[in-house]
Amino acid sequence: MRRIALIIEYDGTNYVGWQIQPNGVSVQESIAEAYRKLVGERPVLHASGRTDSGVHARAQVAHFDTESRIPADKICYALNTRLPGDIRVKASFEVPCDWHARFEVKEKHYVYTIDNSPHACAFTRNTALHVHERLDTERLGEAAEFFLGEHDFNAFRSTGSKASTTVRTIFASYWEKDGEFLRYHVAGSGFLYNMVRIMVGTMIRIGKGFEEPETVKEALLRAERSFAGDTAPAHGLMLWRVKYDLFDTDEILSGLI
Amino acid sequence: MRRIALIIEYDGTNYVGWQIQPNGVSVQESIAEAYRKLVGERPVLHASGRTDSGVHARAQVAHFDTESRIPADKICYALNTRLPGDIRVKASFEVPCDWHARFEVKEKHYVYTIDNSPHACAFTRNTALHVHERLDTERLGEAAEFFLGEHDFNAFRSTGSKASTTVRTIFASYWEKDGEFLRYHVAGSGFLYNMVRIMVGTMIRIGKGFEEPETVKEALLRAERSFAGDTAPAHGLMLWRVKYDLFDTDEILSGLI
Repeated sequence: MRRIALIIEYDGTNYVGWQIQPNGVSVQESIAEAYRKLVGERPVLHASGRTDSGVHARAQVAHFDTESRIPADKICYALNTRLPGDIRVKASFEVPCDWHARFEVKEKHYVYTIDNSPHACAFTRNTALHVHERLDTERLGEAAEFFLGEHDFNAFRSTGSKASTTVRTIFASYWEKDGEFLRYHVAGSGFLYNMVRIMVGTMIRIGKGFEEPETVKEALLRAERSFAGDTAPAHGLMLWRVKYDLFDTDEILSGLI
Repeated sequence: MRRIALIIEYDGTNYVGWQIQPNGVSVQESIAEAYRKLVGERPVLHASGRTDSGVHARAQVAHFDTESRIPADKICYALNTRLPGDIRVKASFEVPCDWHARFEVKEKHYVYTIDNSPHACAFTRNTALHVHERLDTERLGEAAEFFLGEHDFNAFRSTGSKASTTVRTIFASYWEKDGEFLRYHVAGSGFLYNMVRIMVGTMIRIGKGFEEPETVKEALLRAERSFAGDTAPAHGLMLWRVKYDLFDTDEILSGLI
């Protein structure tokens, strides 16, 4: 038995999310089914974490166990011949049998993209949230800084989250402007359910001028959901990078270029 | 009566091309129909040129005549509320009644994108041609230079082209590397049917090492279709910019940021 890790890129538009659901096709089952067609085994895939319906990944990580003898680095090529074009396995490699894609996450990095142009871009309609009111990037930047460090993120999670603690540490939190696009980068030790989307929803209200950047500070201190803003739509969110002690997805992806 | 010019962006994936066709939905009729719903008139739209099925536009230009009194600069906003998200009218403005979007083109600029990574990117599957064999960018660059200047492009057009002359002038022709993406930029006085796609198809064979860069020179001199390569697929091609004496699409789009 070998344990194989995959780095997976997906356009989440046509999926119910990472995890198998009764109401539609998931990324997880698409890959499991492609592998079954390939070698006859249907693997159980464990990801670094779930992504919701419509959320994208530039670098999701998952592992599974297999009895097959296909060379580990060839699995990605074989899977891609059987996967639809909106799911691509960018790399496959063997990992120790006690390594776990979820339990050993050290850091996750998400990017949320806003198309802040007067007319939404035709090419990014499924990967960026269109906000036509001009957002104040200085206010967004100030708000983002309040998230840095260790805080109780109870105000920034949806009910249904079953986390034992709501304290998380944020290592990086900043906005980047690229023409008419605004990208929010956030890296942390871990994230609660809908946490990034509520952080972004809160900052959008601040960027529009409806709230002050200090709202973020207050919501963190009060730790009640009502002090934070709306949950921003799923389609602007992308899982960007996952870091482990064993490897970092960016290291592996840059080795492919 | 006023003449209105539009700058239009579209993801051509779900369309039969710019022009109305019996076998599917065109960009032209989508816009004409949106305008009809808006003001009750169905306009005749004249574009800078047709784009084929699957070809995209960052800046297509079209004009039409209207009796409506909607302020010209508001037409784009009104149209976008009635158009699907893969067609966006980025700007609308009044032009002289004898100005013509096709007859007065001074320069057109196209971009053809190749995804030269081992595994096609999930997000650009409809806007970049995936070529997994590594292309030699030096050879591509050498080949591209042969297209510069005035030449008979008879070898680089599909039959069905009804142009009176096959001589065209190319002002810019170069490849740009952006990570795993290769973008071919070409600007010229005008283009024959499928001309850019045949130029790219010819250069792909050169980039793979199957032909020498000088093949381009020979094909231009011989002026026979058999000396050029295959027609590259439509989905990598994008109409990037159109220049007139009256305006340049880039000037207008940059004014929007």
